[in-house]
Amino acid sequence: MQSPLEKAFYPGSIAVIGASSKPGSLSYQLIHNLVSFGYKGSIYPVNPKAASVYSIPAYPAITSIPGNIDLAVLMVPKEMVLEAIDDCYKKKIQSVLVITAGFKETGKVGGEREAALLKKIHKYKMRLIGPNCMGIINTHPNVKMNCTFVQGTPLGGGIGFISQSGALGAAVLRTVQQNDIGLAQFISIGNKADISGNTILNYWWHNDDIKVITLYLESFGNPRAFMGLTREITREKPIIAIKSARTKAGMKAASSHTGALASTDAVVDAFIEQSGVIRVNTTDEMFDIAKAFDMAKLPKGNRVGILTNAGGPAILAVDECANWGLTVPELSSKTKTKLKKLIPPEGALHNPVDVLPPANSEVYSAAAKIILDDENIDSLIVIVGPPLMLDTLEIAKAICNSLSNTDKTVMLVMMSQDDIIPHLKEMIPVHPPVYRFPEYAARAISRMYSYKKWKERPEGLYREFDADKRTVRKILNRYKGKKNVYLNSEDVSVVLNAYGLPIIRSVFAKNTFELIQISDKIKYPVVLKAVGKKLVHKSDMGGVEVDIHNPDELLRSADRIIENLKNHNAAGLLEKFMIQPYISGGVETILGITKDEKAGSMIMFGLGGIFVEVFKDVNFKLIPVTDIEASTMVSSIKSFEMLSGVRGKKAVDIAYISECLQRLSQLSNDFPEFEEIDLNPFVFFADKEDCFILDARIRV
Amino acid sequence: MQSPLEKAFYPGSIAVIGASSKPGSLSYQLIHNLVSFGYKGSIYPVNPKAASVYSIPAYPAITSIPGNIDLAVLMVPKEMVLEAIDDCYKKKIQSVLVITAGFKETGKVGGEREAALLKKIHKYKMRLIGPNCMGIINTHPNVKMNCTFVQGTPLGGGIGFISQSGALGAAVLRTVQQNDIGLAQFISIGNKADISGNTILNYWWHNDDIKVITLYLESFGNPRAFMGLTREITREKPIIAIKSARTKAGMKAASSHTGALASTDAVVDAFIEQSGVIRVNTTDEMFDIAKAFDMAKLPKGNRVGILTNAGGPAILAVDECANWGLTVPELSSKTKTKLKKLIPPEGALHNPVDVLPPANSEVYSAAAKIILDDENIDSLIVIVGPPLMLDTLEIAKAICNSLSNTDKTVMLVMMSQDDIIPHLKEMIPVHPPVYRFPEYAARAISRMYSYKKWKERPEGLYREFDADKRTVRKILNRYKGKKNVYLNSEDVSVVLNAYGLPIIRSVFAKNTFELIQISDKIKYPVVLKAVGKKLVHKSDMGGVEVDIHNPDELLRSADRIIENLKNHNAAGLLEKFMIQPYISGGVETILGITKDEKAGSMIMFGLGGIFVEVFKDVNFKLIPVTDIEASTMVSSIKSFEMLSGVRGKKAVDIAYISECLQRLSQLSNDFPEFEEIDLNPFVFFADKEDCFILDARIRV
Repeated sequence: MQSPLEKAFYPGSIAVIGASSKPGSLSYQLIHNLVSFGYKGSIYPVNPKAASVYSIPAYPAITSIPGNIDLAVLMVPKEMVLEAIDDCYKKKIQSVLVITAGFKETGKVGGEREAALLKKIHKYKMRLIGPNCMGIINTHPNVKMNCTFVQGTPLGGGIGFISQSGALGAAVLRTVQQNDIGLAQFISIGNKADISGNTILNYWWHNDDIKVITLYLESFGNPRAFMGLTREITREKPIIAIKSARTKAGMKAASSHTGALASTDAVVDAFIEQSGVIRVNTTDEMFDIAKAFDMAKLPKGNRVGILTNAGGPAILAVDECANWGLTVPELSSKTKTKLKKLIPPEGALHNPVDVLPPANSEVYSAAAKIILDDENIDSLIVIVGPPLMLDTLEIAKAICNSLSNTDKTVMLVMMSQDDIIPHLKEMIPVHPPVYRFPEYAARAISRMYSYKKWKERPEGLYREFDADKRTVRKILNRYKGKKNVYLNSEDVSVVLNAYGLPIIRSVFAKNTFELIQISDKIKYPVVLKAVGKKLVHKSDMGGVEVDIHNPDELLRSADRIIENLKNHNAAGLLEKFMIQPYISGGVETILGITKDEKAGSMIMFGLGGIFVEVFKDVNFKLIPVTDIEASTMVSSIKSFEMLSGVRGKKAVDIAYISECLQRLSQLSNDFPEFEEIDLNPFVFFADKEDCFILDARIRV
Repeated sequence: MQSPLEKAFYPGSIAVIGASSKPGSLSYQLIHNLVSFGYKGSIYPVNPKAASVYSIPAYPAITSIPGNIDLAVLMVPKEMVLEAIDDCYKKKIQSVLVITAGFKETGKVGGEREAALLKKIHKYKMRLIGPNCMGIINTHPNVKMNCTFVQGTPLGGGIGFISQSGALGAAVLRTVQQNDIGLAQFISIGNKADISGNTILNYWWHNDDIKVITLYLESFGNPRAFMGLTREITREKPIIAIKSARTKAGMKAASSHTGALASTDAVVDAFIEQSGVIRVNTTDEMFDIAKAFDMAKLPKGNRVGILTNAGGPAILAVDECANWGLTVPELSSKTKTKLKKLIPPEGALHNPVDVLPPANSEVYSAAAKIILDDENIDSLIVIVGPPLMLDTLEIAKAICNSLSNTDKTVMLVMMSQDDIIPHLKEMIPVHPPVYRFPEYAARAISRMYSYKKWKERPEGLYREFDADKRTVRKILNRYKGKKNVYLNSEDVSVVLNAYGLPIIRSVFAKNTFELIQISDKIKYPVVLKAVGKKLVHKSDMGGVEVDIHNPDELLRSADRIIENLKNHNAAGLLEKFMIQPYISGGVETILGITKDEKAGSMIMFGLGGIFVEVFKDVNFKLIPVTDIEASTMVSSIKSFEMLSGVRGKKAVDIAYISECLQRLSQLSNDFPEFEEIDLNPFVFFADKEDCFILDARIRV
């Protein structure tokens, strides 16, 4: 099926409804943009009062247009939008772009207007871009549509740009020429009443005109859908998003470690990382990197060659490479021998190669080719210092020509020569990305290299473990209708056991008398814990005694617990005692589930104690997690060395941690009713059989 | 005394030696720049063959010039430079600027030429800028000197810019107009044979034309002198340096923890932090921030108001503020009431205030004034979205006029309107800094606010503790002539005691017999350690036994140690036993001294164990440290909570840690012979009296 967006981005004809013949008006500017950018289709202005707009014959009504209309652009006053939609339907128009503002963004009345608009759109089975948007662009030579009212002429290229903010979109459009940003398509999605960012992403995924997608989103309709979609798209095309793309929702009242640690930023980081989207800080950075993806090949490795005619800029490039994990390796002796014939003795033959300021276009292009042929090099940054006597445009041209057939990554730095860039574009339409300073080239290569590794990452499997779903369902049924309650500890054990999560075996005693009965039947050492539905923070109240070696100690411990609870006025909350084997040594970890209002359930991993309390050294991911994601969660905490063996300690069973994370993910995925699960501490040892969850809380 | 640089930067007359009459040559371009920028003094070209250069009468030799010469610019071939210097001397010229290249930067022969040049300069008591440099600039209306050969017209302002790289300097000069960078003075210091970065810093410190100093340095002649100088200057003027300013020296072979942790970056971070220099990543960032200091007032606090006509850019500004620790607070109800009368109902009255796209210059300037008057606000970012129908230059003008008298910080963001900036400069020479995107304005405010806090920091004292210098000197004399040796443990104790550093009291026994004799005279529990000059890593060999409770256990421990050493073929290295009180509990820390080749001795602080091994959570500073620096070292480690009490533990005596750091700093400062001192572990408790250094190593 053809995407509903196909007609909007590749229209054979456009009706501009509410086209004003008054120069200076938005609609006049839009028609001007369409005409002057060279739109290949037909334009039909609709204006009941004017015979023509911008010399184009105008029609009094939509229905009076003779031909077919692929795209209707609505610029009528907000009160007239609904009526115009009716006319579009009569004219069998399927795609409408509503530029008119005054909808949801203005408050309640506008919101109702938008709801009515959307209802009509659904009823008529139309698709709607906007309202309150700035338009769309397609630079394809067969289309040449600049259907916006913004000043500035788009430049052809492979970048798709989605902007939720009209102003930001306009700001970028104004600078595309100066910054050599080659746009394939642009869309201002406005209030995204019907067509959302995800719709466009899906469309551009399969659109061959788009090589790289850039994104400015202020809010996510559905973060989980966004992640699911982008992690697939980024296998084929890079997506770059400006950091403002945040879920501002924040977390629900958090009473567990997992909940407290799930800050908004942790959530966003998790889901951006899982989606493979490249997150940037500024608009400039977004397009610096986008044009690298558009105009350069992906680097095969992280080894960068640098060619320069001045030392300072090369040092900046080297520093920035080091900053981003790129290397600037030695060149082969073969390369050096070749360079020696070319470069004056005062120059530098090692990487960065310095050809000195007098280097002309022949020297530059020959040196660039020699370095690029070196097998130690995956990418090349060519820096051309500010021009003194030479025509640097000539140098740039020569470099572009000599490197046009390479399959390596090439970047050009014309130090502060912004004026040259538009000329270069005219003379050599296909050329490497050009930057004003070397730092930006190095940064772009690093992002491309990271993306390349992401793209080639192993698939990862959603493993399915044997689990007793029915038992968990039965328990959950008992809590039905209750809100914000914790499962009692027997239920917690049953639930975790059902999914193979090794909660420590417990024995219960309702009172001291039962405790005495049990005391000589159990294996010591043990831990004794107070249990009660409302005894959530039992350790803080002295409700836990550890390392108990015999029946005698056990009873004394029970006395102490009762005493402690009394001191906290909590003796009445004690329902029974729980006895568990005492485990010492090992590494304490926390595994948990928490819920983000918009993104849904997330899984957390971290080490316990000071690692979580002081260093907040934890990782989050949206569930479900693949085996690879689970392993990454474990291996990428900062304190990983604590698990892999530090100070002569044995490593714990890391694969088993990953398995437990996957089991927990499966449990949470099967039962979204769990608001919060906290396995804390979960103690791991070298031997899987020794690992136990010592305490766990589950909230529904 | 007048600075030797005064004549160079404010010359009444300039001789250009080696002035070519050939258009396109460097010297012709330099004279063109001098003339066309409107130099207020006299220019004397020196050329034995031409009667005039650039229509200015030329002289055949320096000595034939009739008037006085304040500055001689040498552009003769490198072979003729020395001779020209002789002539300058004859002409009583005190300041020379050598643009000619071919000196140290080209290798051995050039290096010798530079040495000869410097010798002459010293002999003649002249001062030299360069060689191999690009020139100097002073935009002061009474001077108007562009004495460089670079294209581009400087713009007046309060920024001083020192560039070690000619190419980077040229790149910046080419963009000053476009980016509205107001330079007061510029100097390309080239090979800095005589006049160094520090010389210029010192000069600009006391020069009222310079409001803010920017710096591109590739190497430090003397990092310690740089730090000493800049920490004083930054009390009065901000200094911004691009990150390439690194000591690449690296550390000498490191055998201690302190040494191993002192990476190049740790050293640079330490010394940049202590110097108060603002370190940036890119050239753009450097001048974005410099122009903020030049054109805006320092913010009194971190509360930012935002005024915009579009939502998207305001969100980016808010995000970036949050990123940098700035707040975007609620406005007062008084402010909102005033704004309500001004802004259409669809706009936003809360911060960020949105006046909507139709806002004209009256609305904008009135709203800006209202917000700025709000007592909840220290700074204001005014964002003007891309122009649609309105003249944004008019808006910018109105804003600048209405805010000209404020004592708060104001930034203007003209979204993607680079074209407007030069016009604004023409119409309103004194205006707030202007940026293309809001992120940069927010970043600039944050740097200004940090600087303001730095500027107002308390002085800090170099405390002088009573110390027995003579005893330490005596011990050191015994090690004279020896290289890379460790002090024996008695000497270590004596040295530390001499400076009041609480090394644990030790008793020694030469053999098992002596051990038996001592065993009933000491207080238990104790620790028993093997001692021997070559037993450096004694714990790894099983040479330490802890928690010994009685004479019997003591002897059995001694046997075990002997056995262990035998197993490591190290029994022969055992010289004696050391007995110390056994200390348990407390917090283990490391205090240490290490040496950077160029920067000299540095002091380190961190927690022991995994904090140092896994998290590398340590702080370095150059010695000596003030009381405030020492306290900051302690309080700014990430794991500070471990010291201030976590999980119900008592806080340790933090003031005492700071005192011990100062004592260690004093020791190291008094005796630079100490290559490495490692107090590890140094255990701290709540009570100062309980704190002890359990082990220490000192290398000379």
